[in-house]
Amino acid sequence: MAQNIYDDEAFFDAYAQLPRSVEGLAGAAEWPAMRALLPRSLRGARVLDLGCGYGWFCRWAAEAGASRVVGIDVSERMLAQARATTDDPRIEYRQGDLDALQLEPDDEFDLVYSSLTLHYLTDLELLLDTVHSVSMMGTRFVCSVEHPIYTAPTHPAFAAGPGGAPVWPVDGYLREGARVTDWLAPGVVKQHRTIETYLRELRSAGFQLVDLREWGPTDAQVRAHPEWEQERDRPPFLLISSVAIRRD
Amino acid sequence: MAQNIYDDEAFFDAYAQLPRSVEGLAGAAEWPAMRALLPRSLRGARVLDLGCGYGWFCRWAAEAGASRVVGIDVSERMLAQARATTDDPRIEYRQGDLDALQLEPDDEFDLVYSSLTLHYLTDLELLLDTVHSVSMMGTRFVCSVEHPIYTAPTHPAFAAGPGGAPVWPVDGYLREGARVTDWLAPGVVKQHRTIETYLRELRSAGFQLVDLREWGPTDAQVRAHPEWEQERDRPPFLLISSVAIRRD
Repeated sequence: MAQNIYDDEAFFDAYAQLPRSVEGLAGAAEWPAMRALLPRSLRGARVLDLGCGYGWFCRWAAEAGASRVVGIDVSERMLAQARATTDDPRIEYRQGDLDALQLEPDDEFDLVYSSLTLHYLTDLELLLDTVHSVSMMGTRFVCSVEHPIYTAPTHPAFAAGPGGAPVWPVDGYLREGARVTDWLAPGVVKQHRTIETYLRELRSAGFQLVDLREWGPTDAQVRAHPEWEQERDRPPFLLISSVAIRRD
Repeated sequence: MAQNIYDDEAFFDAYAQLPRSVEGLAGAAEWPAMRALLPRSLRGARVLDLGCGYGWFCRWAAEAGASRVVGIDVSERMLAQARATTDDPRIEYRQGDLDALQLEPDDEFDLVYSSLTLHYLTDLELLLDTVHSVSMMGTRFVCSVEHPIYTAPTHPAFAAGPGGAPVWPVDGYLREGARVTDWLAPGVVKQHRTIETYLRELRSAGFQLVDLREWGPTDAQVRAHPEWEQERDRPPFLLISSVAIRRD
């Protein structure tokens, strides 16, 4: 199974301070771009959120008209907070390890959503097979991950480049596997995969690509947060929308 | 129009020394991966090669059974060599600026191929529309370009990284546009585009993604050329296979 860093006390406390934890979706700079990849209406939709955290998206989906929302997360601490914020009977939070995901026999979803979670998993193929097994023809799978350019480096931080200006020091892009970084807490383990691998795994699980975005801040976001200009030097996030089709 | 660097004498003379110029397809390390993206049989196929250079692929396609092969290149010097190597009546070489491509009224192709050419073009949208206009439903479009990680940097060369080992100094990945580099000759102009843009432009021209490869050397290639190991730090090439479908 993947490391459950979210139940590490130091990590959890630091994570709880992030804008996306305090403000929810509005605190996630890439949310408008993610939202644009979602089906236009969620009215009546059955929604699965993999790595639901505090449940911000689950509650948003219910407000947007979903008939049922299942949020799964490995972290008991985050789920406890998620459960405390809602008594909406359409929303169900479940604890689960996404590297060995068990779904219920009658689970069936119209939209599967996953925000910044898949790059923690060691067995993406198994997860995608499980997601496909609870998808109908036409079920949308919309996910974000840390961009492979972001996860590749041995030293994932801007550094002085050959021209003096900061550069993102890419190495090992084609060498996939674990990357250990100190983000919020020391020793956080992520799995680096190429874009090729994400697309191939989706395809072989039975999903067809609809859209792919290498996220960077909009001009309006850079005006509001000039320091975000640097995110344009290398995309922090990769957003993928796909649709379940018959297996070949 | 794009710069025609191939008719610059210094560039041409240096290009003529590259393994891929001397040995043809066998001298192009990514050729086996490109070949794997092609339709299994070219028997009877009508083939268009955009940026055909010395015509190595055109002659290969004819030998593989294509019924007609059109190779287009901007460089008169390369076309002169291409024409001198064959008298196969199925092969036709045409001079043309791919940034303002004019095809003939009855042109129609089953396979469109383009190797390491599109990153020189300033108007990708126009080219893809033209390609789609000579495609049938099901026509394959297989192309390679310099990988966006490769084209992004202001200083596109390995440099000492924060850990001492060489890194590929990425900046400006999300800032698309011209990059002027000194490759074989000074002042070579390439157009940097993201993967997102390549996929979006293909989609809006009416092509659906079939496969995408971020090329790196195989283990056998690294054994034969140990210095190629460094290509795994950042992919030099992006290979895309797509298929013409109806416009939405």
